[in-house]
Amino acid sequence: MFTSRHFKPGSAPATLIPRGDTPPLITLIQYDAETYEEHRVERIEEVFACRDNSKVSWINIDGLSDVEMLSQLGKHFGLHPLALEDVLHTPQRPKIEAFENHFFVVMEMAYADGPFNVIFEQISIFFGANFLITIQEEALHDVFDPVRVRLRNGRGYARTRGHDYLAYSLIDAGVDHFFPVLELLGDAVEELEDELLEHPSRESLIKLQELKRALLFLRRNAWPVRELVTSLTRDESGLIKPETKIFLRDCYDHTIQIMDVIEGYRDIATGMMDIYLSSLGMRTNEVMRVLTVVSTIFIPLTFIVGLYGMNFEYMPELKTRYGYPVTVGVMVLLAIGMLAVFRKKKWL
Amino acid sequence: MFTSRHFKPGSAPATLIPRGDTPPLITLIQYDAETYEEHRVERIEEVFACRDNSKVSWINIDGLSDVEMLSQLGKHFGLHPLALEDVLHTPQRPKIEAFENHFFVVMEMAYADGPFNVIFEQISIFFGANFLITIQEEALHDVFDPVRVRLRNGRGYARTRGHDYLAYSLIDAGVDHFFPVLELLGDAVEELEDELLEHPSRESLIKLQELKRALLFLRRNAWPVRELVTSLTRDESGLIKPETKIFLRDCYDHTIQIMDVIEGYRDIATGMMDIYLSSLGMRTNEVMRVLTVVSTIFIPLTFIVGLYGMNFEYMPELKTRYGYPVTVGVMVLLAIGMLAVFRKKKWL
Amino acid sequence: MFTSRHFKPGSAPATLIPRGDTPPLITLIQYDAETYEEHRVERIEEVFACRDNSKVSWINIDGLSDVEMLSQLGKHFGLHPLALEDVLHTPQRPKIEAFENHFFVVMEMAYADGPFNVIFEQISIFFGANFLITIQEEALHDVFDPVRVRLRNGRGYARTRGHDYLAYSLIDAGVDHFFPVLELLGDAVEELEDELLEHPSRESLIKLQELKRALLFLRRNAWPVRELVTSLTRDESGLIKPETKIFLRDCYDHTIQIMDVIEGYRDIATGMMDIYLSSLGMRTNEVMRVLTVVSTIFIPLTFIVGLYGMNFEYMPELKTRYGYPVTVGVMVLLAIGMLAVFRKKKWL
Amino acid sequence: MFTSRHFKPGSAPATLIPRGDTPPLITLIQYDAETYEEHRVERIEEVFACRDNSKVSWINIDGLSDVEMLSQLGKHFGLHPLALEDVLHTPQRPKIEAFENHFFVVMEMAYADGPFNVIFEQISIFFGANFLITIQEEALHDVFDPVRVRLRNGRGYARTRGHDYLAYSLIDAGVDHFFPVLELLGDAVEELEDELLEHPSRESLIKLQELKRALLFLRRNAWPVRELVTSLTRDESGLIKPETKIFLRDCYDHTIQIMDVIEGYRDIATGMMDIYLSSLGMRTNEVMRVLTVVSTIFIPLTFIVGLYGMNFEYMPELKTRYGYPVTVGVMVLLAIGMLAVFRKKKWL
Amino acid sequence: MFTSRHFKPGSAPATLIPRGDTPPLITLIQYDAETYEEHRVERIEEVFACRDNSKVSWINIDGLSDVEMLSQLGKHFGLHPLALEDVLHTPQRPKIEAFENHFFVVMEMAYADGPFNVIFEQISIFFGANFLITIQEEALHDVFDPVRVRLRNGRGYARTRGHDYLAYSLIDAGVDHFFPVLELLGDAVEELEDELLEHPSRESLIKLQELKRALLFLRRNAWPVRELVTSLTRDESGLIKPETKIFLRDCYDHTIQIMDVIEGYRDIATGMMDIYLSSLGMRTNEVMRVLTVVSTIFIPLTFIVGLYGMNFEYMPELKTRYGYPVTVGVMVLLAIGMLAVFRKKKWL
Repeated sequence: MFTSRHFKPGSAPATLIPRGDTPPLITLIQYDAETYEEHRVERIEEVFACRDNSKVSWINIDGLSDVEMLSQLGKHFGLHPLALEDVLHTPQRPKIEAFENHFFVVMEMAYADGPFNVIFEQISIFFGANFLITIQEEALHDVFDPVRVRLRNGRGYARTRGHDYLAYSLIDAGVDHFFPVLELLGDAVEELEDELLEHPSRESLIKLQELKRALLFLRRNAWPVRELVTSLTRDESGLIKPETKIFLRDCYDHTIQIMDVIEGYRDIATGMMDIYLSSLGMRTNEVMRVLTVVSTIFIPLTFIVGLYGMNFEYMPELKTRYGYPVTVGVMVLLAIGMLAVFRKKKWL
Repeated sequence: MFTSRHFKPGSAPATLIPRGDTPPLITLIQYDAETYEEHRVERIEEVFACRDNSKVSWINIDGLSDVEMLSQLGKHFGLHPLALEDVLHTPQRPKIEAFENHFFVVMEMAYADGPFNVIFEQISIFFGANFLITIQEEALHDVFDPVRVRLRNGRGYARTRGHDYLAYSLIDAGVDHFFPVLELLGDAVEELEDELLEHPSRESLIKLQELKRALLFLRRNAWPVRELVTSLTRDESGLIKPETKIFLRDCYDHTIQIMDVIEGYRDIATGMMDIYLSSLGMRTNEVMRVLTVVSTIFIPLTFIVGLYGMNFEYMPELKTRYGYPVTVGVMVLLAIGMLAVFRKKKWL
Repeated sequence: MFTSRHFKPGSAPATLIPRGDTPPLITLIQYDAETYEEHRVERIEEVFACRDNSKVSWINIDGLSDVEMLSQLGKHFGLHPLALEDVLHTPQRPKIEAFENHFFVVMEMAYADGPFNVIFEQISIFFGANFLITIQEEALHDVFDPVRVRLRNGRGYARTRGHDYLAYSLIDAGVDHFFPVLELLGDAVEELEDELLEHPSRESLIKLQELKRALLFLRRNAWPVRELVTSLTRDESGLIKPETKIFLRDCYDHTIQIMDVIEGYRDIATGMMDIYLSSLGMRTNEVMRVLTVVSTIFIPLTFIVGLYGMNFEYMPELKTRYGYPVTVGVMVLLAIGMLAVFRKKKWL
Repeated sequence: MFTSRHFKPGSAPATLIPRGDTPPLITLIQYDAETYEEHRVERIEEVFACRDNSKVSWINIDGLSDVEMLSQLGKHFGLHPLALEDVLHTPQRPKIEAFENHFFVVMEMAYADGPFNVIFEQISIFFGANFLITIQEEALHDVFDPVRVRLRNGRGYARTRGHDYLAYSLIDAGVDHFFPVLELLGDAVEELEDELLEHPSRESLIKLQELKRALLFLRRNAWPVRELVTSLTRDESGLIKPETKIFLRDCYDHTIQIMDVIEGYRDIATGMMDIYLSSLGMRTNEVMRVLTVVSTIFIPLTFIVGLYGMNFEYMPELKTRYGYPVTVGVMVLLAIGMLAVFRKKKWL
Repeated sequence: MFTSRHFKPGSAPATLIPRGDTPPLITLIQYDAETYEEHRVERIEEVFACRDNSKVSWINIDGLSDVEMLSQLGKHFGLHPLALEDVLHTPQRPKIEAFENHFFVVMEMAYADGPFNVIFEQISIFFGANFLITIQEEALHDVFDPVRVRLRNGRGYARTRGHDYLAYSLIDAGVDHFFPVLELLGDAVEELEDELLEHPSRESLIKLQELKRALLFLRRNAWPVRELVTSLTRDESGLIKPETKIFLRDCYDHTIQIMDVIEGYRDIATGMMDIYLSSLGMRTNEVMRVLTVVSTIFIPLTFIVGLYGMNFEYMPELKTRYGYPVTVGVMVLLAIGMLAVFRKKKWL
């Protein structure tokens, strides 16, 4: 659950181990302010030429099964073997690594797969002055689609800026994808809170544990993104242009908002356990009150009827004409008195 | 509740989306030590000329529905599109952004709408060497009114200082507006504390949750204001004059006081859950004690009367003359003894 | 309770609002190694000349009702209007402000007014190279008396050093005044702890809440003093002489000791809630045990006597000669057996 | 348990005290890109010559019983006596010490010896420009085996790099060895969580305590490794080559992942106590409900039958023909009504 | 308990107040690599000459009653009056003060006086280039004895190094003295943990409180030692030689280990309260279960026997031949069924 990474301790560093077996999909997108091209690539060598023109080149790879191809890609673009190992070794902690002429960014995308079940997919981004490569685990989910749509339409600043702005757009798309997940979680949190107040059960407790775990994972994958974006805004290598840094600062604000929401939910989740415990206590109290009221009323009455059930020969009351109705009357008064006391104590 | 911001992940950055549909109210205030003018403006172009004289110019806009107008304003005053997006994209986390020739400040004003229900309205302030623009969500609440009154009267330092002092006055008005909200909350806190000690119920628990949430929101919207004011006091661009910085330091003290109060309430709210739980425990204890006292007194007595209710043929006591009164006497003594024991144990 | 400051949001900054209505007492003390003068001053102008000789001058003002006088004082000594506002606007958070030629120090003096009721009085100190002004809320309590006594006697370093040493002496007197308050609180804490262990009640809970609140206030008013003293020891303006800084470091140690004690009490207060809850649990347990023992012994016996109280015609035991004594014997044995079991379980 | 170190306070610093009594095993490995030699050494003097060639030399010592030998080794390689004391004085806190021409690294290797029983073995590494010495407590476990295998095979970067890379490989092997231990712990955590939800017992509580303790120890021995690796990546002595630092950064990521997992488990373990308490509360509630339902149904009925068991002479109901069946009918209806009420309250 | 320091607020700073009344014992130790002298001194003036030779001089004073003598000592060696006040004003927070030509170190030595009762004795060390003075509260305990033994024997580095190494030895002896206290505490902790799991009582709770308090004090007196040692290792005055700093770093490691152990115990102590509460809950549960089982079995049976104890004239069952045995049989079956149900529910 927590160590999804099955390390064989002592395996050589920078060993590339394939993941899954569906062959990877390679797409090459090239554009400038006027033109936009997007086509599927069969052999990785076809993309190598993309660096040689002034257009922005985005190579996207879906699937981690072809180690050979990644290794070629790495050699051509000068990607560090340890970085490629991290691409394959999912899940990684989100991070940024600055290499001599490019950055390597790893992020974990959140997808909600049920109210308290968040799954993550790793995306890796390499980008330098004249290339940008993204590598994803699978083609099923794609958080980059809206960026592609904007590029095709040529709206906004999308096509007029360089690789650094494209990198920003992709990271921002990734960050913004936390919001719908958090919204879904928020609805489930409110529902669970009501449930805990109204009819707490063992199932609520299990849900609460799932919620806490989901928040733990979200936090772990959101928190480092903050640092990641910060270190991009502080870049001094020149790979990030000043005008892009303003956009990155905006992205940084979003990561803070995400953390705020997660921390808010964590606060609430912590309080929920107390609600659960107090709901339990209140229920026990209610049960006890019923028992006490019933017992306290009937135990003395039962004593009285037992008293006149004794077989002593000499019990003058038993012989009197009105012994029975008087006794019943006394008992009725006693019961009414008791009820009044309990009503005053607000136990009824 | 937490993510009031309905992000469409992947929407282009710096997209201006209108909020609400009532047309915005634009007011232009211009003053110097001698003169003061305030008039409603119909078309945004009318305010563009205000930068060209030596007076202090304050443009106030209530309402976020007219994207076109904001966009023109932005172009004329050189406001960054991302900043304008933040103006529209409420609620934002309070923050300050330093642009080349102006500051952009966002704050969330707190209004109490019931004891534990705090609502927030966003105010955005742009100010440079020769202009100050404030943009608010709606005209209903206006925390700036007292500033306007002071300007009209020309009291205090109000009219003799520049745009930076005006910006300080507005931020300070916003900060001080937290105090009445906190006072209201404080009264409600004390009431709730008494309620929890005296007669805790499920409703108290719900109120406590609401209180915690209100404090969470207040904290989230007050804490960043502190940093915001700090970074203004440390400004090195020259937009903030040294004599204004002394005033900003005073404003900084107020933000710290606000945080102190909020943290104090949070401490108290945390303790309240314990009070609630212990009140519950005490009640259960009390209920149990009643049950135990009644049962412990009557169960042995009921046994005795049951004993002499047996139908054995040979039970000599039943035939004796004083069997009945002696038995009753023994039972009375037993009951009195029990009561004495319980009184000694302080259960009565 | 927390916001004793009734802000009118939007009131002009640096507005002086009088507090109370008893006219202020003004005292002027002037001394050097040989001489010591102390006399009451009627009109504030009389003290203005004190800066012009080489003696140490200490102007003490008790009472905050005369705004006009304070304003004159401020003008003569160059005190900032915002500082004067803070003097009047009690309670302030303890703080130090460095102005061009003087320091402004605000502290809150603690006085114990009952075991868990700590009240605070604000003292403000302005001091520069050739003057020292102290302003207090009222003349009732005076933490400065011991300093005055030492000055009169001329003991210690008291009279041979300058305004900075006098300022240190006054701050130190203020800091040391926390100790007797903490000692009183400490006694009350130990008493409360015993009470919670021995006979916890709703009153103990209320006391515990009061204790927590008192600690919260003490902490809030002690913690900033630490920073205040630190920044004096780091002064680079030359107003604080190096030999005085050694004394300030000693004062700093005292503030740390105060914080240590407060944090220790807070730890203990947090643990007290657990003690209370567990005492409650232990009591419920004890009550339950009594009920269970009594019920478990008598319920089976009552069943047996009920059995032989049945009116079946054919119940051979009823006719036998020794039915009754045998039954009673069995019941006695049963009861003894039960008691043995409970004793073994340590329920008795 | 916590202070496995039996200090004799006041013993002279840098005293070497032997541990255990099995004679140490000394192995010398020497290699370069082409050659690889590994042989057992009997007398420590045999290894002294290893520094004089260009090969990478790795001296491994298993066993801490021979103080004399270590002392000779220390003298030859210039190891500080305090460092040698730390080698013998197990367990140490993981740390790095930079000496003039070598580094001294201490780490604690984790081995799982049962679900919640983690044991640690200390490894000490000395490495300089032309030597690397590892000293382990015993030969039983050896986390360095995979590194040896890689060296023999000459795969990866293994044999082409210097002593710093070898040191990295060994540290990395140590760090990665935490993962299988954490995985085992993770399984046990999930099992325990289910146990606490399903059938909590005193044994679960003891397991939970053991788990918490294991996490405490893991954290204590993992956390300092992080700093250790960081300070190696920041080395400025030149002993660590820049290309090795990239690998160390990868190792650093692993330590962070380990801490993340440990903190996650700690969070869960903290939550488990609450689950345990609430499971207990739920059980008590269930027990109470059974008691209350049974008592509340039968106590009134028992009263009724007691009523008609009274021996009053004048009780007209007793004489009627249908008294008995009507009474029974009433009681059945009463019981059914009660059951309906309880079913509505969801107590059944 | 927490404020053992009975401050008279406002007493003059640097006032020397004697403690106790036994006259102080003064010992002078002088040594170099070859010679070692140790003799008792009657009059303080006899030690003043010790600075004038090249030997290491250690003046030890046991007892704080002779203010006059300390004052002379201070004048001769240039000790600051505030430092001497701290020597007498026990207990101090451990600290180091750097004066012009000497250091002043205060530490609190821990002695275990019962499992959870830790007492502290203050030791003060002044040391400069050519003198070292230690002042202790009393001669009863002496943590410096082992150092003296080593000096006499001339073992280790003991006699070949200067005053800084002697100071290190003394501080190290003080630090190491925490370990036996912690070991004793550790045993008591484990015992208490078992007690809480097996048979929790009010006494355990009191012990737990004592434990928490002991840990609080240990932490308060150990934590600042860490900073103290750090600042010695960072000394730039030249009083501490580089080779001594390596030893101080070792001493620093010990302080960290002490803090680790204390924090570990604190974690465990925090968990103990939860264990206590859950043990209480489990006991209540057990008591309830016994009550419920007994009641639930016998209450229905008692109803049945009551039923046939009614005196209705027409109750056909009473007349039948097998009414009684059938009824008894039904009751036995009922009881067996109940027991089976409870066994299935694991309540028995």
